[in-house]
Amino acid sequence: MRMVDIIIKKKDGLKLSKEEIEFFVNGVTDGSIPDYQASALLMAICLKGMDDEETLNLTLAMAASGDSIDLSQIPDIKVDKHSTGGVGDKTTLILGPMVAALGVPVAKMSGRGLGHTGGTIDKLESIPGFNTQLTQEEFIRIVKDIGIAVAGQTGNLVPADKKLYALRDVTGTVDSIPLIASSIMSKKLAAGADAIVLDVKTGSGAFMKTSEDARKLAKAMVEIGKGAKRKTVAVITDMNRPLGKAVGNALEVKEAIEVLSGHGPDDITTVCITLAAKMLELAGMGDFKKCAQLAEGTIHDGSALMKFKQMIKAQNGNEKVVDNPKLLPSAKYTVEYKASSKGYISAIISDKLGVASMLLGAGRATKEDSVDPAAGITLLKKPGDMVEAGEPIMILHANSPSLFKESVNELEKAVKISSEKPPETPLIIDIIQ
Amino acid sequence: MRMVDIIIKKKDGLKLSKEEIEFFVNGVTDGSIPDYQASALLMAICLKGMDDEETLNLTLAMAASGDSIDLSQIPDIKVDKHSTGGVGDKTTLILGPMVAALGVPVAKMSGRGLGHTGGTIDKLESIPGFNTQLTQEEFIRIVKDIGIAVAGQTGNLVPADKKLYALRDVTGTVDSIPLIASSIMSKKLAAGADAIVLDVKTGSGAFMKTSEDARKLAKAMVEIGKGAKRKTVAVITDMNRPLGKAVGNALEVKEAIEVLSGHGPDDITTVCITLAAKMLELAGMGDFKKCAQLAEGTIHDGSALMKFKQMIKAQNGNEKVVDNPKLLPSAKYTVEYKASSKGYISAIISDKLGVASMLLGAGRATKEDSVDPAAGITLLKKPGDMVEAGEPIMILHANSPSLFKESVNELEKAVKISSEKPPETPLIIDIIQ
Repeated sequence: MRMVDIIIKKKDGLKLSKEEIEFFVNGVTDGSIPDYQASALLMAICLKGMDDEETLNLTLAMAASGDSIDLSQIPDIKVDKHSTGGVGDKTTLILGPMVAALGVPVAKMSGRGLGHTGGTIDKLESIPGFNTQLTQEEFIRIVKDIGIAVAGQTGNLVPADKKLYALRDVTGTVDSIPLIASSIMSKKLAAGADAIVLDVKTGSGAFMKTSEDARKLAKAMVEIGKGAKRKTVAVITDMNRPLGKAVGNALEVKEAIEVLSGHGPDDITTVCITLAAKMLELAGMGDFKKCAQLAEGTIHDGSALMKFKQMIKAQNGNEKVVDNPKLLPSAKYTVEYKASSKGYISAIISDKLGVASMLLGAGRATKEDSVDPAAGITLLKKPGDMVEAGEPIMILHANSPSLFKESVNELEKAVKISSEKPPETPLIIDIIQ
Repeated sequence: MRMVDIIIKKKDGLKLSKEEIEFFVNGVTDGSIPDYQASALLMAICLKGMDDEETLNLTLAMAASGDSIDLSQIPDIKVDKHSTGGVGDKTTLILGPMVAALGVPVAKMSGRGLGHTGGTIDKLESIPGFNTQLTQEEFIRIVKDIGIAVAGQTGNLVPADKKLYALRDVTGTVDSIPLIASSIMSKKLAAGADAIVLDVKTGSGAFMKTSEDARKLAKAMVEIGKGAKRKTVAVITDMNRPLGKAVGNALEVKEAIEVLSGHGPDDITTVCITLAAKMLELAGMGDFKKCAQLAEGTIHDGSALMKFKQMIKAQNGNEKVVDNPKLLPSAKYTVEYKASSKGYISAIISDKLGVASMLLGAGRATKEDSVDPAAGITLLKKPGDMVEAGEPIMILHANSPSLFKESVNELEKAVKISSEKPPETPLIIDIIQ
């Protein structure tokens, strides 16, 4: 088999066989296929596509390219959750404890963020002492003990994805449904859960800008799940507006605690209950309606907040932050961002808000950057709210006053004020299963 | 400017600016753009195309990537000729002397062959003593002295093409009209001639398999010529059948001598007169009809053969081969390839014939291989001829008897015998100007 023939076949719009896809993935993993051939095939895949069978074979080959996590020591159905990423997305911190409080084990491997905002691991590390670098044994032990652990990836999981993702980033080949779907799903398969709930975000703050594209991606991933014999559901949620009111690592932990205490913003609460209910449904806890009630109940009875506290303690964090969020790192400087005119806030463009937060120190511009746990933005107003000229819309948090200027420049592009109230749009757009 | 943005622009089917194309070509030349980004863009160009302006800008940037030959010391209009390559194509050896015999200077830089058959340089080097490695000064002096020189490339001509061609070869991106057109024309522009005649071959033995593709390539190159202010004409010629009866380096020199002596095969004679006439026309020697008569006249009056002799002598070759072709290298072993059944020869598939000749030693499988000047194939029959079962169709020439078996296997696929006489097809398919 020659890589050049595989490239030409895809360039000509033909279907690649299982063997050809495995040859490609194995060659990328062991380095025998040079990057210039891999990138040519990636571009051909971008422009000519892959059908469901090819996408499944690509995912399976990638999932098999490195280690797999064995969760068989943990009894019951393990449900994983993945979000395609968005600004201010702290859903894992909230729904993990909700689901675990109901006895469904949550063994979640998570990543650091690249770009706009920190990832779940960055957020958790803003809790003093919190250890995300668990060995596989520690990870499984904690899940068995208390029903939940959230840790950084251990082992050599899906090395093919690491190489391909780095190459896609610099060759303009990120933007392809089969490549995105296989990248996400290969990691989910290798992470070992029995069932997967996918939160596919759509809108300006998300990778999928239109709900049409989000649906395509959701369908592709659900098909892969079926092909790989894992129950998979995708919930398409709106990211045209920021989720919740906090963007930034410690600020989002604080907001997660508020949600789990029953007084968080409605939007993030609703999304978390929906996703948690889908996870519970896949775990066999009943129909969606019943599961949504169960999930909501964990907020009202305090069991989810208690589970969050347990998890922090089990991972060596200071669990007192739950009762006293002032123990979380806070920024030395804050600045108010004020409305330039009177009117309705018609939009807060999420990706620009994310960039503004990154510029304050909350995210990474390159993989090597560190994040400032205290930095970020708190929204005082949300799209649809009326503001007076000069009224504060947000509070910016940073540890150096020099960071505000660039961030504010970005916010000028993010916030739109209009004389008309913007139409309300649904938060949960669709569920694909 | 970032290469990844240029890649994405072309991936999205947008037109690249002159500056973007120059950024790409300069970065490939100086190595600042890595191969994996170049190959991603090449694939996007293959699949999304380039318009005439982009193709011209690509060609001009490539032509400017290295040295240019300055032919201004040679008076008169210098006309270059390029063939897109075919099996048994010895036209340069024939039309060069024809054109030079009429006083139009021929300063031809030529290449070695990769693949099926040797290039013009390989063919000339089969003449004992013939020196193709001229300095630029020697090259120009010989053209000024006798009106013709054919030499290998000197200087660092079009380094961007060298890099891109090598990359295209291994990334499945050879097959693109704008990339082929810019590769050929950038070298013609850098070679310094005032006018260019292109011989675009089409058919099984050629790179352009259909006359529709050949027309597209011809039009693209003529457009580039116009844009670069060089008079350019393309003649589309048939390569569904081999041109002439000889394939192999010394065998083709011998056939060129036969054509110049007035008793060569009709097909190659006709093609050479047509191409020579177009060159003469561009040099201002009159209309096509008159130029064709002039070209034909150089065969009848012996002036073209005399010019060929002069050229061989000027380049240190043994010019006695012209009167005594037995002085050319000849193979130790010959084998007849015989008809398997009675009937008309309906096809001799040229590319398979080329491979069969290569397997005898006449061509290169890799760039590093050397060619055997004596090896090759002589056709005794051509498509349309009637043969009896067991009647010899070709003679195979090789210096090792072990080479025949594989070559004959290839010929089994090349020769088709049918009960019906195949239709006659035109040799000159179209002229684009």
